Amino acid sequence: MHAALTIQPLPGIPLVSSGDDLGSLLLDCLAELRLELVDGDILVVAQKIVSKSEGRLVQLDEVTPSPEAVALAAETDKDPRIVELILRESTAVIRKAPGVIIVRNRLGIIGANAGIDQSNIDHGAGECALLLPEDPDQSAARLRDSLQQHTGRSLGVIISDSMNRAWRLGTLGQAIGSSGVRVLDDRRGGRDLFGRELMVTIINRADSIAAAAVLVMGETAEQVPAALVRGFPPDDSRQVARQSLRPASEDLFL
Amino acid sequence: MHAALTIQPLPGIPLVSSGDDLGSLLLDCLAELRLELVDGDILVVAQKIVSKSEGRLVQLDEVTPSPEAVALAAETDKDPRIVELILRESTAVIRKAPGVIIVRNRLGIIGANAGIDQSNIDHGAGECALLLPEDPDQSAARLRDSLQQHTGRSLGVIISDSMNRAWRLGTLGQAIGSSGVRVLDDRRGGRDLFGRELMVTIINRADSIAAAAVLVMGETAEQVPAALVRGFPPDDSRQVARQSLRPASEDLFL
Repeated sequence: MHAALTIQPLPGIPLVSSGDDLGSLLLDCLAELRLELVDGDILVVAQKIVSKSEGRLVQLDEVTPSPEAVALAAETDKDPRIVELILRESTAVIRKAPGVIIVRNRLGIIGANAGIDQSNIDHGAGECALLLPEDPDQSAARLRDSLQQHTGRSLGVIISDSMNRAWRLGTLGQAIGSSGVRVLDDRRGGRDLFGRELMVTIINRADSIAAAAVLVMGETAEQVPAALVRGFPPDDSRQVARQSLRPASEDLFL
Repeated sequence: MHAALTIQPLPGIPLVSSGDDLGSLLLDCLAELRLELVDGDILVVAQKIVSKSEGRLVQLDEVTPSPEAVALAAETDKDPRIVELILRESTAVIRKAPGVIIVRNRLGIIGANAGIDQSNIDHGAGECALLLPEDPDQSAARLRDSLQQHTGRSLGVIISDSMNRAWRLGTLGQAIGSSGVRVLDDRRGGRDLFGRELMVTIINRADSIAAAAVLVMGETAEQVPAALVRGFPPDDSRQVARQSLRPASEDLFL
């Protein structure tokens, strides 16, 4: 592709609560900004507002830590109730250290704390934690359906989360869910400039888009939980973000 | 920031050879595209053309593999001359498997094959391999100086490479060198929407920009080895890409 991309922040979305219709909130926001969606547009939505709309907020005083959680919490210097939630949301602890628990979560995503977060949550009703959506690819598909139905456009949706990485400092946006986006842009089998067959060139388009979008979204009090990415041609890809997961048998860093 | 970002591909840069002045080539390309640089613009340039301009192409028939390289080549099913170059460019082998050598290179970057590449190279004069620039942050600083001198604008420069990652499929663009770009956008100490102190929110801006730019750059015969990222305010940051490296003592995946 030789088209320019634009990454447009979508500020002004109100605080999201359980049961809110994210599609409507996004369309209201776009109307307010006088932005009209066109075919190929990709909406990137922060995991936090998806989780909130799906009621994934947990009251910590309702969480009873298991003995395993209590032990791991002592080892890592964390709140046993948070550790209990991390373990419930995970299938394996990959690494642990003071202040750090890295797991494979039940979705297969490897990262810190199973994506459980305590920031940007109204703790008026006692301490809370926010879990990832039950099935972020499904969440993205539902949101895409809703947006497409209302606009008649061919769209993509990505649900982004900020992730730490091995070896490098600073988080990157990552696609934890998606619909209507070519996730793995496979250029293998093509030829390079001099006709040599390209060996391993699969670009993770969904993660790259999420990384770009998080640049304008911000995580602090800026209240920009979504971005509009424009410039890709419409894509009827059936790929989903889950296909980004490297099979454990092929992973050298577990 | 609430401004939109644009990611503009810069096609039409001719094939680069040792000694070429990348600054001039980029300015010619921008003039051809009728793009005028403004304060805050960030130029993202593919590592390959930086390496080529710096004469980092090595003739494989001039490489004599050491016994260590011969053994590792047999173990990983690779060309012993390429393995010799990988070892010369590295300080530690982190993982090895058939077809895979992951090292810490002499710059501290962890990745496959020390970034050595055989694609998009004119092999007319026999088989060649292309090494990373000697010092990509320095390369970025020189290119930035040249571009700023010619335009009078306050600019940033990122040198990007496509990297594989632990746990996830598909490559992402990554900043292996930079100048004039806030690499680690430290939002710690800020307050979230509800006044809770933000604990760990440092976004890697340089890597995020590189990931975005590679979306429009392409790696195959598309000849788009650079992109223009617009929308950030001018930045007098003295940070460089090398600061993205996580200290080995804090890394759980070595």
